[in-house]
Amino acid sequence: MSTELRVGLLGCGVVGQGVLRLSQDNARAIEARLGRPVRIQRVYLRPTSKARPHLPAALISDDPRHVYAADDIDIVVELMGGIETAGQLIEAALRAGKPVVTANKALLAERAHELIALANQCGLDLYFEAAVGGGIPVIRTLRESLASDGVTAIRAILNGTSNYILSQMSRRGLGFAEALKGAQEAGFAEADPTLDVGGGDAAHKLAILTTLAFGVRLKTAQIITEGITNVDAIDIQFAKRFGYVFKPLAIAEAFEDGSLGLRVHPALVPESSIMAHVTDALNTVHIAAEALGPCILTGRGAGAGPTAVSVVSDVIDIGRNLLAKTAGRVPQRAFREEVMSDVRIRDRGARQGEFYMRFTVEDRPGVLAEIAGILGQESVSIAHLVQDAPDQGANAAVEVVLLTHAAREAAVEQALSRIDQLPHVRAPARRFRIEEG
Amino acid sequence: MSTELRVGLLGCGVVGQGVLRLSQDNARAIEARLGRPVRIQRVYLRPTSKARPHLPAALISDDPRHVYAADDIDIVVELMGGIETAGQLIEAALRAGKPVVTANKALLAERAHELIALANQCGLDLYFEAAVGGGIPVIRTLRESLASDGVTAIRAILNGTSNYILSQMSRRGLGFAEALKGAQEAGFAEADPTLDVGGGDAAHKLAILTTLAFGVRLKTAQIITEGITNVDAIDIQFAKRFGYVFKPLAIAEAFEDGSLGLRVHPALVPESSIMAHVTDALNTVHIAAEALGPCILTGRGAGAGPTAVSVVSDVIDIGRNLLAKTAGRVPQRAFREEVMSDVRIRDRGARQGEFYMRFTVEDRPGVLAEIAGILGQESVSIAHLVQDAPDQGANAAVEVVLLTHAAREAAVEQALSRIDQLPHVRAPARRFRIEEG
Repeated sequence: MSTELRVGLLGCGVVGQGVLRLSQDNARAIEARLGRPVRIQRVYLRPTSKARPHLPAALISDDPRHVYAADDIDIVVELMGGIETAGQLIEAALRAGKPVVTANKALLAERAHELIALANQCGLDLYFEAAVGGGIPVIRTLRESLASDGVTAIRAILNGTSNYILSQMSRRGLGFAEALKGAQEAGFAEADPTLDVGGGDAAHKLAILTTLAFGVRLKTAQIITEGITNVDAIDIQFAKRFGYVFKPLAIAEAFEDGSLGLRVHPALVPESSIMAHVTDALNTVHIAAEALGPCILTGRGAGAGPTAVSVVSDVIDIGRNLLAKTAGRVPQRAFREEVMSDVRIRDRGARQGEFYMRFTVEDRPGVLAEIAGILGQESVSIAHLVQDAPDQGANAAVEVVLLTHAAREAAVEQALSRIDQLPHVRAPARRFRIEEG
Repeated sequence: MSTELRVGLLGCGVVGQGVLRLSQDNARAIEARLGRPVRIQRVYLRPTSKARPHLPAALISDDPRHVYAADDIDIVVELMGGIETAGQLIEAALRAGKPVVTANKALLAERAHELIALANQCGLDLYFEAAVGGGIPVIRTLRESLASDGVTAIRAILNGTSNYILSQMSRRGLGFAEALKGAQEAGFAEADPTLDVGGGDAAHKLAILTTLAFGVRLKTAQIITEGITNVDAIDIQFAKRFGYVFKPLAIAEAFEDGSLGLRVHPALVPESSIMAHVTDALNTVHIAAEALGPCILTGRGAGAGPTAVSVVSDVIDIGRNLLAKTAGRVPQRAFREEVMSDVRIRDRGARQGEFYMRFTVEDRPGVLAEIAGILGQESVSIAHLVQDAPDQGANAAVEVVLLTHAAREAAVEQALSRIDQLPHVRAPARRFRIEEG
């Protein structure tokens, strides 16, 4: 290592430019804290990349080997995104003896345990604070602060776009489509919002947190994933009447039999909870641990600034290790192949919890009794019920909304599939889970 | 270092026993994460200590040198409390070549910069995650996660007892004395609650956070400190009417001229804020940083479990450094004498902000006009005002409550001292600051 810490970037989009800006703007503070200046030495851009007018031409290379295998690079920072190429380049960097920082959640969700195993094998650091929760120090907290304790559950808001949309729907009484359009115009949602509003992005991040917190190997596909597209304005209003707020949750819970419940879905949380007030594009991670109790980390989950702070803090941390000649100081032993176990997923139907249900039915005698009868037969007990004033007109439909006491999810699903077949039920029932917040 | 990480405890009260329990209960997980088992090797108890029936007699020593200077101790953990002796023993441990973990906020509030300078000089680690916010990883976040960014403000709830009392007053409509009694019975307040409800404990913790976040030398006495004892049940009710909740805040703000505003006092925060919902004995630290934006850490601020988690995580972190032979790896350069500066405290009267004021006045014509007149003369502008229905009876008094627009604190104090002298004003005005939350 020279008198500077020389960083090579793979890719330079929004986050990369944030990293460049932060390392320039705070150069003196970073040098004071690390003991050496941090220098962005080279940037690999794919031939297909957009022009980067703010990037000095002398920094740019079109050959990734000039970053991951160059003698004058101390740390490789991968910010390209995508799975295939990014994964190959990270492996190549580790094999070439370079520690790596990455913000690539999609890649880590699929291959965190392999890549960390490779880093351990090479005696090198692989850090990824920016991959989950942007500027929120959740990875460091799980890895270091909770090193002495056992995590029992994680309940989180991990997708800022979904939280922004639900917040706007709640605040302004908007429907989903309208709120999505507003989020796109405000820059909080992509043109193709599927990964965000469908829950896929949150599932990626939950997979990474689960791997870290519980030391298991899993694939994102093993997580129950439901998007927020089914939440209607009317559900948000009914939830409010009962004292609840809709939030896009990501949950990992450990059960006594060693299985994990892993779910991403919108849920109702009590208005009095802290989580209900984590609004707009903010993210939050509520970690429950045995001795610690709750530890709740909240902040910006995305954006150039917060993400760059996490990337550069990882760079500084690795820089400290390089200066001290202790790459791999935090051994991430939870990821040694011999310690990691395959995840055992809790059966979806096994969840015991409260539910919100909404039925659109014809306004005629007996319908409510039929619904209540089926729920009773399936041992789903009703805690609260409201029936909305019927529409005017001949084909009047009413909305019946109820909250259940704790019930088994399998029983709820069974009841709902029976109710959906009743002759006077106009639309498939909506059901959402109620969670602690 | 032997095949074990051998820890010596100075003192073994509630937190010490938590450390013993945690290191036993989670021995396997800790060993997996550190690569060595952690062993409590010896415990120094003062001659005046209570009997510790759960502590094996073989562990106990009545000579502190057997902890801080013994060859078979790798890390010293100071949990005695108090300033004088604890400080001497920490210095002695560092001089004897032992890294130190401490949870002693009173000591660090006065001497953090000296002790860290000594640790740096000795090339040893001095960690103190447990000193602020119990189980909340705020020290690590300020030291590592925010290493690349500049902190602009800290707004925090740092005293669980005060938060518990104000929460109970709000939830159950209790007066201060009654709520304090309840807190004492529930074990959330000491027999002598002065340090908690008077703001001294929060000021200690704010001093430590300020030292870390802004790299300044300061004494707790330099912090404006007002306790919660002046908050009446009626103030909590009025605040609620206006959409606010009382919280015991600790605030450090950096101004453009390089000065710091440092204050501990109860304040009104908006009901819609996250902080308003951090209730009971929970603590929270809202860090605002330039690139990061907000980062909010919430959790249990006290108690054997959370505090022990922070202590043992510090032990593991230092253990990693010892194994890697890199004591002092995080150089805490912000504390090198040549980098630290003396704090410049912002003048109390300079605060610009909104205020809540309550006046108890005789129910007669003209009083309100006199109050409003004086406020106007002092350029304090009224945003909202309510006057409560008068008491029945001859000597009827009314409560006049108003919220101001942003005003200079010096002007507010000047106005209030004039109003207090009006003939028909029955009691000194109550004034509380309104903060962002």
